Amino acid sequence: MAWTLVLGGARSGKSAYARREAEAAPRRGRLVMIATAEAHDSEMAERIARHRAERDAAWATLEAPRDLAGAVCGLAPDDVAVVDCLTLWLSNLMLDEADVGANLARLASALSASPARLLVVSNEVGQGIVPDNALARRFRDEAGFMHQRLAAAADRVVLVVAGLPLVLKG
Amino acid sequence: MAWTLVLGGARSGKSAYARREAEAAPRRGRLVMIATAEAHDSEMAERIARHRAERDAAWATLEAPRDLAGAVCGLAPDDVAVVDCLTLWLSNLMLDEADVGANLARLASALSASPARLLVVSNEVGQGIVPDNALARRFRDEAGFMHQRLAAAADRVVLVVAGLPLVLKG
Amino acid sequence: MAWTLVLGGARSGKSAYARREAEAAPRRGRLVMIATAEAHDSEMAERIARHRAERDAAWATLEAPRDLAGAVCGLAPDDVAVVDCLTLWLSNLMLDEADVGANLARLASALSASPARLLVVSNEVGQGIVPDNALARRFRDEAGFMHQRLAAAADRVVLVVAGLPLVLKG
Repeated sequence: MAWTLVLGGARSGKSAYARREAEAAPRRGRLVMIATAEAHDSEMAERIARHRAERDAAWATLEAPRDLAGAVCGLAPDDVAVVDCLTLWLSNLMLDEADVGANLARLASALSASPARLLVVSNEVGQGIVPDNALARRFRDEAGFMHQRLAAAADRVVLVVAGLPLVLKG
Repeated sequence: MAWTLVLGGARSGKSAYARREAEAAPRRGRLVMIATAEAHDSEMAERIARHRAERDAAWATLEAPRDLAGAVCGLAPDDVAVVDCLTLWLSNLMLDEADVGANLARLASALSASPARLLVVSNEVGQGIVPDNALARRFRDEAGFMHQRLAAAADRVVLVVAGLPLVLKG
Repeated sequence: MAWTLVLGGARSGKSAYARREAEAAPRRGRLVMIATAEAHDSEMAERIARHRAERDAAWATLEAPRDLAGAVCGLAPDDVAVVDCLTLWLSNLMLDEADVGANLARLASALSASPARLLVVSNEVGQGIVPDNALARRFRDEAGFMHQRLAAAADRVVLVVAGLPLVLKG
């Protein structure tokens, strides 16, 4: 089944776009939110709570802060799922000093092999000034490489700006 | 009358684009610049002076650092106006600890109800790395929500990159 | 001969896109990389080495950290060249306290007059939050003005996002 990469800046409406697309898709199975966030601080906890409150009861939630490929592989053919979001997953891997390249390769395979319809959300973080600190620069680089790699594999790529989709591929 | 939201990064040419569009529009009334900037420091004072120098005498200027909805409501049906820019207005509201949501609702109504032709400029600030400080993160979030809200209401939305318009809607 | 401005964020795939376009272009002369980077620190030295390793032996390399107009003027009519990248060149000029405007005017003339086919890469840096320090703000402003000026002169302008080209002009 086809999968879509949904890119967008902070508060660009990318998650809401992905949820709307998922809700509008023809579906016989579950509507699944695969969430990658972990509440490391109160700001994040608040954000997670707000996102949950925005979703109605039609959604099943899977927590997959690290094993995203495993979560994707567990979907059924009739499911429609949103992964929200890749940048938090990347951030979790980097905090763990995990092998980003190997995890990314597993994820790309899982996404392309999945029989479910998938919308995968990620943050565009590379269009500002070069960050002062080295970790932020490394994160920006890894996020950029991840987006290139996944955009090449995705069936459809959309950039969301101010809630409006701009189709980059597909 | 239709209104256009003009988004763009810093020095993207978004203001010049809005002014050119306004000057080229059929018009029987005034050509009005609704300016939201306040000179809090010398860098900003310089920027305001440069923007004024770039506009020729055809433009009437209204200062509306806070009551933007009021300024929009005061336009005549034959006027063509540019609002420059929403991000400074948002920043003024946040400095005052004003109710951003209520002000935004009033502005959205005023823009949609206005009989004048309007081009409304705002800064895209959400495509860089997550800022270190909490105020900058809050500003980025509020700007993103504002853009989503207004883009949904606008008749036309344009993203300006390197002086070139990319139509997102309309 | 026509020239293309290739814009993109950090790790957007803009350089790889420019190289692929250059390699695919009809060509009877050389394939030339005009590199503007200088290794001021080990992170940059590593980046330069990685970029070199990614290019195969088909490429001739010219180093032009400052006199980019001179390098462009030295190309032969049958050459296909990539300039990578303008933002590092701008940064070198600013470090030298050189006259950015005069250098930019010379470069714009050289690009438009060149008989070679050119792809000119630059970093989009203006879509994040306003930077804290004044030098970063000045750099962002100069980069934005440079992009506007060159985009107006270019035959084609492309924004690369996640490795995918979005045509802004041409």
